[in-house]
Amino acid sequence: MIENETRFRVRYAETDQMGVVYYANYLIWMELGRVEYCRSIGLRYKDMEVNDGIFLAVAEANCRYLYPARYDEEILLKTRVKQSGARMVRFAYDILEAESGRTLATGETAHVFCGRDMRPVKLPEKYLLLFSQ
Amino acid sequence: MIENETRFRVRYAETDQMGVVYYANYLIWMELGRVEYCRSIGLRYKDMEVNDGIFLAVAEANCRYLYPARYDEEILLKTRVKQSGARMVRFAYDILEAESGRTLATGETAHVFCGRDMRPVKLPEKYLLLFSQ
Amino acid sequence: MIENETRFRVRYAETDQMGVVYYANYLIWMELGRVEYCRSIGLRYKDMEVNDGIFLAVAEANCRYLYPARYDEEILLKTRVKQSGARMVRFAYDILEAESGRTLATGETAHVFCGRDMRPVKLPEKYLLLFSQ
Amino acid sequence: MIENETRFRVRYAETDQMGVVYYANYLIWMELGRVEYCRSIGLRYKDMEVNDGIFLAVAEANCRYLYPARYDEEILLKTRVKQSGARMVRFAYDILEAESGRTLATGETAHVFCGRDMRPVKLPEKYLLLFSQ
Repeated sequence: MIENETRFRVRYAETDQMGVVYYANYLIWMELGRVEYCRSIGLRYKDMEVNDGIFLAVAEANCRYLYPARYDEEILLKTRVKQSGARMVRFAYDILEAESGRTLATGETAHVFCGRDMRPVKLPEKYLLLFSQ
Repeated sequence: MIENETRFRVRYAETDQMGVVYYANYLIWMELGRVEYCRSIGLRYKDMEVNDGIFLAVAEANCRYLYPARYDEEILLKTRVKQSGARMVRFAYDILEAESGRTLATGETAHVFCGRDMRPVKLPEKYLLLFSQ
Repeated sequence: MIENETRFRVRYAETDQMGVVYYANYLIWMELGRVEYCRSIGLRYKDMEVNDGIFLAVAEANCRYLYPARYDEEILLKTRVKQSGARMVRFAYDILEAESGRTLATGETAHVFCGRDMRPVKLPEKYLLLFSQ
Repeated sequence: MIENETRFRVRYAETDQMGVVYYANYLIWMELGRVEYCRSIGLRYKDMEVNDGIFLAVAEANCRYLYPARYDEEILLKTRVKQSGARMVRFAYDILEAESGRTLATGETAHVFCGRDMRPVKLPEKYLLLFSQ
């Protein structure tokens, strides 16, 4: 199983007045993880959209928040494919504070492959193999 | 059971290049629903933070995306408390396209009550009654 | 001169750890003002994009921040066209705390009309008249 | 004069349905530039907030948009201090598409130093020297 590791720092814009990262931003981070996961297996998500007209429409997302992330902390995001098929793919994520290694949150997202008209399509063979590694 | 209905329009900033609302924004909408739910039962969330130093820390969030929301559509958001206790509260949401009444997404969030130090606290009696209606 | 007034409440997601609204969000608010201004003169921005393939590309934006906006405050946003022509339009905004009437910020945005290819176009006569009221 | 260079990729969440980066996000990028500028001169913005209770409140922001930034492009952000004193600091930014070196946008932000109560304060000597390099 392939696991991608991505690192980035918490932005000030991502905090809220509770002094911690606003909860919706974890879903933005998960997207960063997906993009880097795809890049790491040789799949440029941008090309899939532009060249093949295939989009990953989100069908489901969930996140469990264990410890708050704070401004300027370095985040270590681990992304892997949990399940994949011709019509959908499911990613799982671990979000850690890099320095301490403490898990801040875990999550999953499920996606269906869609055409430009937002209707589900089967994923071309060339992509299918990449996701099923 | 109390159910709050809130209406608002999709902002341009909330769309992405797929031409639909970016998935993390549904969690921002759920927060709008929570705030309006609280207001409707006589609880001003701002006061709870400022006067009592009690925050609703998110412990879990999930969302199922059925149909995409699009720019300028009016959204009807229905919010209710699914479960509540002295230490946590769980909200459930239905997100509909107002004109057609079509359900675009459903979701849930679970929250623990925290003090200013982000440690869990028991909710004061006065709030407890409000949430358990 | 037409001036549109729009009202909305500050979202929790819009605050940052300084306890006030994060500065980039004022530009999102300005967009709300533009959309409502257009709606008030009978121009649905969505239709202009979908039917005529004309987009308002931002060429310039500025904002002066006088007092911080805070969570849950009601904001009164006043929007007007400061200047308009066949190739561009300039909006001006006043952002006030509704209850006190205190001005929180003022701003301007300049826009060029673009086609789907993001190249500048001349605005069709029917729209031109609307903006020059 | 010190100039800081920061690089990052455009996030999907930062695009809008025009297929380009939404204009408010450039202000979020400017903040990334400020933070990295400060780090490069030995000033950790987080510490200034936590240890000294000094915040950089934005007084003014402006941005000129020349070419649209697109998803997944690498952005090169150049940040410098244009002016500084005991009460305020003004940053200037150049935002480039890294590969081509094309300037996408330029901007400036002006900030006043504030205490926790959001009232202006004079910047302690130790910080003043750093900004005036």
